[in-house]
Amino acid sequence: MTMDLGRSLRLGLYGSSHGPEVGLTLEGLPPGTPVDLAAIQADLDRRRPVGRRLATRRHEEDALIVDSGVKDGRSDGSRFQAHVLNTDVRREPYDRLRHTPRPGHADYPARIRYGPEADLSGGGIFSGRMTVGLVVAGALAKALLAPRGVAVVAYTRSIGAVEAPAPATMPPAELAMRARANEPGTFDPEAAARMEAVIAEARRAGDSVGGVVEVRASGVPVGLGEPFFDSIESVLAHAYFSVPAVKAVEFGAGFAGARMRGSEHNDPFVLVDGQVRTTTNHAGGILGGLASGMPIVARIAVKPASSIAHPQRTLNTETGETVELVVTGRHDPCIVPRAVVVLEAMTAFGLADLALTGGFLR
Amino acid sequence: MTMDLGRSLRLGLYGSSHGPEVGLTLEGLPPGTPVDLAAIQADLDRRRPVGRRLATRRHEEDALIVDSGVKDGRSDGSRFQAHVLNTDVRREPYDRLRHTPRPGHADYPARIRYGPEADLSGGGIFSGRMTVGLVVAGALAKALLAPRGVAVVAYTRSIGAVEAPAPATMPPAELAMRARANEPGTFDPEAAARMEAVIAEARRAGDSVGGVVEVRASGVPVGLGEPFFDSIESVLAHAYFSVPAVKAVEFGAGFAGARMRGSEHNDPFVLVDGQVRTTTNHAGGILGGLASGMPIVARIAVKPASSIAHPQRTLNTETGETVELVVTGRHDPCIVPRAVVVLEAMTAFGLADLALTGGFLR
Amino acid sequence: MTMDLGRSLRLGLYGSSHGPEVGLTLEGLPPGTPVDLAAIQADLDRRRPVGRRLATRRHEEDALIVDSGVKDGRSDGSRFQAHVLNTDVRREPYDRLRHTPRPGHADYPARIRYGPEADLSGGGIFSGRMTVGLVVAGALAKALLAPRGVAVVAYTRSIGAVEAPAPATMPPAELAMRARANEPGTFDPEAAARMEAVIAEARRAGDSVGGVVEVRASGVPVGLGEPFFDSIESVLAHAYFSVPAVKAVEFGAGFAGARMRGSEHNDPFVLVDGQVRTTTNHAGGILGGLASGMPIVARIAVKPASSIAHPQRTLNTETGETVELVVTGRHDPCIVPRAVVVLEAMTAFGLADLALTGGFLR
Amino acid sequence: MTMDLGRSLRLGLYGSSHGPEVGLTLEGLPPGTPVDLAAIQADLDRRRPVGRRLATRRHEEDALIVDSGVKDGRSDGSRFQAHVLNTDVRREPYDRLRHTPRPGHADYPARIRYGPEADLSGGGIFSGRMTVGLVVAGALAKALLAPRGVAVVAYTRSIGAVEAPAPATMPPAELAMRARANEPGTFDPEAAARMEAVIAEARRAGDSVGGVVEVRASGVPVGLGEPFFDSIESVLAHAYFSVPAVKAVEFGAGFAGARMRGSEHNDPFVLVDGQVRTTTNHAGGILGGLASGMPIVARIAVKPASSIAHPQRTLNTETGETVELVVTGRHDPCIVPRAVVVLEAMTAFGLADLALTGGFLR
Repeated sequence: MTMDLGRSLRLGLYGSSHGPEVGLTLEGLPPGTPVDLAAIQADLDRRRPVGRRLATRRHEEDALIVDSGVKDGRSDGSRFQAHVLNTDVRREPYDRLRHTPRPGHADYPARIRYGPEADLSGGGIFSGRMTVGLVVAGALAKALLAPRGVAVVAYTRSIGAVEAPAPATMPPAELAMRARANEPGTFDPEAAARMEAVIAEARRAGDSVGGVVEVRASGVPVGLGEPFFDSIESVLAHAYFSVPAVKAVEFGAGFAGARMRGSEHNDPFVLVDGQVRTTTNHAGGILGGLASGMPIVARIAVKPASSIAHPQRTLNTETGETVELVVTGRHDPCIVPRAVVVLEAMTAFGLADLALTGGFLR
Repeated sequence: MTMDLGRSLRLGLYGSSHGPEVGLTLEGLPPGTPVDLAAIQADLDRRRPVGRRLATRRHEEDALIVDSGVKDGRSDGSRFQAHVLNTDVRREPYDRLRHTPRPGHADYPARIRYGPEADLSGGGIFSGRMTVGLVVAGALAKALLAPRGVAVVAYTRSIGAVEAPAPATMPPAELAMRARANEPGTFDPEAAARMEAVIAEARRAGDSVGGVVEVRASGVPVGLGEPFFDSIESVLAHAYFSVPAVKAVEFGAGFAGARMRGSEHNDPFVLVDGQVRTTTNHAGGILGGLASGMPIVARIAVKPASSIAHPQRTLNTETGETVELVVTGRHDPCIVPRAVVVLEAMTAFGLADLALTGGFLR
Repeated sequence: MTMDLGRSLRLGLYGSSHGPEVGLTLEGLPPGTPVDLAAIQADLDRRRPVGRRLATRRHEEDALIVDSGVKDGRSDGSRFQAHVLNTDVRREPYDRLRHTPRPGHADYPARIRYGPEADLSGGGIFSGRMTVGLVVAGALAKALLAPRGVAVVAYTRSIGAVEAPAPATMPPAELAMRARANEPGTFDPEAAARMEAVIAEARRAGDSVGGVVEVRASGVPVGLGEPFFDSIESVLAHAYFSVPAVKAVEFGAGFAGARMRGSEHNDPFVLVDGQVRTTTNHAGGILGGLASGMPIVARIAVKPASSIAHPQRTLNTETGETVELVVTGRHDPCIVPRAVVVLEAMTAFGLADLALTGGFLR
Repeated sequence: MTMDLGRSLRLGLYGSSHGPEVGLTLEGLPPGTPVDLAAIQADLDRRRPVGRRLATRRHEEDALIVDSGVKDGRSDGSRFQAHVLNTDVRREPYDRLRHTPRPGHADYPARIRYGPEADLSGGGIFSGRMTVGLVVAGALAKALLAPRGVAVVAYTRSIGAVEAPAPATMPPAELAMRARANEPGTFDPEAAARMEAVIAEARRAGDSVGGVVEVRASGVPVGLGEPFFDSIESVLAHAYFSVPAVKAVEFGAGFAGARMRGSEHNDPFVLVDGQVRTTTNHAGGILGGLASGMPIVARIAVKPASSIAHPQRTLNTETGETVELVVTGRHDPCIVPRAVVVLEAMTAFGLADLALTGGFLR
C-alpha cells in the first residue's frame, strides 16, 4: 500500500474506516500558512451525503481535531496532523462476504493480495471515508494558493443523463456559491432539482447512479508544472485516480479533441486587457504540461456506487457456485455530490505541490 | 523540471531534441533481467512516422547504443543507460518565434518560466523525441513482465472520425501482430486504409488529426497495485499524461460508465475454466485500484499535432499585435500511430514498477 | 525541516516539545508485524533521566497511545501512528533568551533561519524530546528483525574519562541484561558506580559531561546493505547524526584503523563451527558497505549537554554586548545514558529499513 | 544497490570499473549554473595516485566527456550527464579468487548477496573508480556554492603516525593552494615529505597505510541544514561513508568532545568585525544540525587499502581450508591522498543539496 502523495507537500493518510479514527499527516506546509479551522470544517461538511448536507451538522460528526503543526492559527513548521473520529463504526456481518466478493468492490483482489485475515469490513483503507484526509489537505492547499490569486472550484456537471455544463465565463466565486447552494452541487437550481430526482429514483430502485465532476482552477501562474514527468495533467490525474470510484479524466477538449483537426484544436493567442489569453481553451489551460494562464479545466468520471441494495449475482469463491448476493446496510445511491469537494481538494493539493516545487510560493 | 518517473524502477531522461543525443537512465532493474537489443530496437522502429515505418530502417536512424548495465545479454545490476544519436538536428530559424508563440505548443509558458534564453528549437525537452527513452524503458519492462505471463498490447482505436474498436475477445498476440502489420497501427486492414486516407487528407490540407489509442494488459497478477495513492489507474495515468499530446485517459467503461446504473456497471463474478472472471469488464480490470485478473483496458486521447503548415493567428507578445504565423519545416500530420508504442511502453513500465514494489517479481 | 527518515520503512515525527504531544508516523511496516506495547513502553522507560530510570514509572509519564495501524497485537497494513502526551510543558521565560543565544544550542542559527517568531522554548523540534518517536520506531524495527536472528544492543562505553569497553565475546543477551540493570547503562556495575559519581559531580558543579555509546548488532544477514550510497555505514551514520548531541561516529577500528597497516587491519577469514568468520573485527562487521556476518560495531560520541546551570558568556545580538547568561530550569547533567536506547533504536531502524529494501524479510 | 544520492541535487552513478566507462547523471542542477570543464578536469586529476599526480596528465587518462546538460558553458536545465572511459581495463585472473575472498574486500558478502556470477574483477561497483562521478558532481556543486561565498577545502591531516593539523586560522585559499602543491595533499611541505616516506616504506613492504582527511567549509550561510533528519552532520556523514574505505567521521571536537565538560565544550558567542562568531569551534560550525556561521570542520578516517602484495591468510570457502593468498596486480599503498578531492567533493555536494532544499541559492 502507498499512503503517501506529493513531492514538496507530502500527504499521508492514517487510520481506516473500521478503526477509531481517520486522519492525515502533512509534511512540507510552509511555516506561517494560515490554518482556518472553520474553512476546513466547511469543506468537510460538503462531504456529507445528499439528504444530510444542508441539514444542521451535529457537532460530533466529522469534527476535525488538530494534533500537531498549528500555533495561533498558523502552521508552525512542525508536521501538520489531524483526525476525525469514526463515531459510527458498525461491524457489519461481513463474515458471509468472505467467500462471496461484492461485484465492483475491491473485495476479491484485496483478499488475494492481503490474505483471508484482511479486514475489509466497511472497506478498510479502500473506503471513501479515507477521503476525509484529502479534503483537509485540500483546504490547506487552498489557503496556500489563495494569496497568489488561485481559485479552485468544482461542481457536478452531470448525474446519470442529466448534464449541466456551467458557462465558461462564469466567475469562480459565483460558480462556487451556486454549487454549494444545492445538494447535488451543481451550478443551476433547475438542473439540481432534476439531478435530485434521478438520485431519488435510483434510491427507490435499490440502485445507484454515476456522474461527472468538473474542476476549474483560475489564476494559476503561467509556467507552473514540472514536465517531463510531472506535467500538470500527470500530477492532477495521479491524485484524481486515487479517489475511489474515479474511472476517467480529461483536460480541456479531452476525448472530443481527439476528433478535431489541429487548426481547430490549437487555441489562438490574443491580448485581452493587456493579458495574454487564448480565444478558445481546448488545451484546458495546460500547454506542454505547463499552465498557460487560461483556466485549468478537468472533467472526472465517477462510476455509480458499487454498493447497491439490488440483489446481485456473484461467485462463492470456495464452492465455485454462482450465488445471489444482497448487500445490506446503508447505501448511498449517488456519491458524485460528495466527490465534488474531494476532487476540488485534490486539484488544490496538486497545484500547491507543484507551486512549492517550482518556487512560485515564495 | 522533473525528469524522473517510478518508485521501484526509476527512469530518468537525458539529452534533448536539439542536442547531440537523447537517452535514458534506469535504476532498479533486477540483475539478470534479459536485455534483448533486437526487441528494443524493434519497438524503437515502431516510433517512426507514418510513411517511413514499414520501409527499411537506415542503420543510423535511432540505433540504440547501450552505455552501462548490460553484460552477456542480461542486466548486471549497475544502472542501465543507453542513448540514440540525434543525426538530424536542424536548427530551425526559431528566432522569429521568440515573440510569436506557436498555438498549441509550450512556447509561451516555457518562455515565461525559463526565460528568453531557453532554447525551444525543435521543442527541447518538450519534444516528442524524448519519448525514445520511454520506449526503451518499456521494452525492458515487458521483458520483466513476460515470464510472469503479462502481455501488454496497444493499438490505434480511432483516428479522426474513423473508429476501429478491436473485439474484446481477440487474443493479445493476434492483436499485436495485426496492429504491427499496418502503419496506422490498428487491428483491421480495412480500417487502417481509411485511417491512412484521413491522414493523407490532413497532410494535403497542411493540417493534423488526433485519435485514440487503446491499451490492453492481460495476465496481470490479481492484487497488483498500491492504493490508496498508487492505484493502477493513478500510476498509469501519471505515465500516460507525461507523453506529449495526451489529453484524456479512461479505464474500462470510463466516461460512459458515469451514465450507467450500479446494477449495470458492476461486473458479476463467474468461474471460467476454474478461474475467477467477470462476465463484463466495465472496471477495466481494476477494482479498488488493484488488478482484478481481467484484462486491464485503457483508452488514451491524443490531440491533433500542434505543428501544422496551415497559417495560424497568434500574438506578437512584444508588440501586442495579432499576426499570422506560418510554421515551416517537416510536419507530422498524425502522431497517433507513433504514440501507440509509447503508450504501450508506459503501461508496461507502470505495471513493472508496481510489480516490483508489490513483490510480484521474485 | 526534514521530518522523514528511511526508504522502505518511512518514519515521520510530529508534534514538538512545547505542544500537547510528540509522536510518530511509520509507513511501510509489513502487515502482521507483532506490536508488543509492553516492549515499546519498556524502551521508552529507558529514555528517562538518571535518577528516575529505576524508580517506578508513574503511569502518565510517556505512556504510549497508539492511534492507527494495530489490530489484535499486529500491524494491520495501515500507517502506524502513536504519541505520548507532553504532561509537563512549562513555558520557560525564554523571552529574555531572544537576543542572547545559548552557547551550544540551535538558538542562534534557528532564529536566523526561521525568524524571530520561531518558538524555541524547550527546544521545539530541536528538543531531545522528539527522540520519543525514534525509540518507538526502533522497538518496532527490533520486532521485525528478531525472527531473523538479529539482536541489537547498545550500552554506555564511557562517560567523561571513565571508560568501560565490554568484552567482544560477551553474548548480546547478557550485555543487554547488564546494561539495563544500572542507570548509566553500562555493562559493569563497578564502572557504573564510577560513572554515576562523575555525573553527580557534574551536577554539583552546575555542569555537564559527555560520553560514548557503543552499539552491537549480531546476526545481521551476510550481504545486507545497499552500496554504493546506502552502505550500512551511510544509513546508520545518517540516523545517528540526527540524534541531538551526536558529534562523531566510527565503525570497527574507526579512527584507530587510520593508523594501522593493511596487513594488520584486514581481518583474516576462518571457519568456526562451519561458519565463515574473521579472527579480528576491525571492519566492524561491514565490508564494502555490506554486512560480513561478524557483529556490526559502532561507537557514537555524545557531547556534554549544552544546558548547564553554570553562568556562561554570550552575546546580546541586538546590542552587540557580551553578557553573562544563566540558564534556569532543570538540567540533565549527562544525557549519554538516555541516548543509549535512542541509538540502539536508530541502529535497529536502519538495519530493518535495509533488510526490507534488500528483500531479507520475506 | 542504491546508486542515487541527494534530495534536491540527485546524483546517480553508472558504469563500473570493469566496463567500458564510468559516469554520472545529475538531476536538479539549476539552469544557468556555470560548468567549467577545466576546473572539473583539474579535480579529476587530483584523484590520480601518488607518484603520478604531479606528472603531466596523458590526455586520454580520465578525460571527461559531457553527454548532456551543458550549452555554451552553462547547465541548460536538462539532466547533466558525463563519463570517462576505462582505458586500462585489465581482467585480472580473478577466477581463482572465487572461493578465496580477499580480506578487507567486499568479495565475500557480495558473493553471498549477488551470487557466484557477480563479476567482482577490479571491484565492479565497489571499486574506488566509481568515485570519478563523485568528483565531477562535487566540482559542479562548488560552482553552485562559490557565488554564495562558500569555500570547501580538504587536505590530508595524517598518514599513519604522521600528523599535520593545519592552523584553524589558515585562510581557505591558502590551505587549498598548499595542499595541492604536494602529492600527499597536506598543508606543510615538511610533513608532506615525511608522509611520502611512510607511503614509500609501506610500498616496499608490500603493505598499505591509512590516514585522516580534514575538510573545512567556510562561508556556509547561517541556518543551512534540514534537521530533524537532514542535519548537516547526517547529510555529510551519509555521503562520506559511501566513499570506499571510510570508517569514521567526526565534526568539531568529535570524540575528544565526549570527554569534555559542557562549560568547556560550549562555544561562547562574540562579535568580531560586526559578525556573530564563537571564540572556539568545538561544534565544528554546526549547532542543532544547522550551520552556525563558523567554519564547518569534519575529519574522516580512511582505512589502509585492503589490496596489499603481502601474503595473507584467508579461507577457501568451498573446501573450508585455510589458505595463503597473494593478490597480484598493481597496489596503491595509500589511497588517502586520492580521497582528499573525493571527500571535498562530497562535502560540496551535500552542502549544495541542502542549500537548494533550503532555498539559499535563489
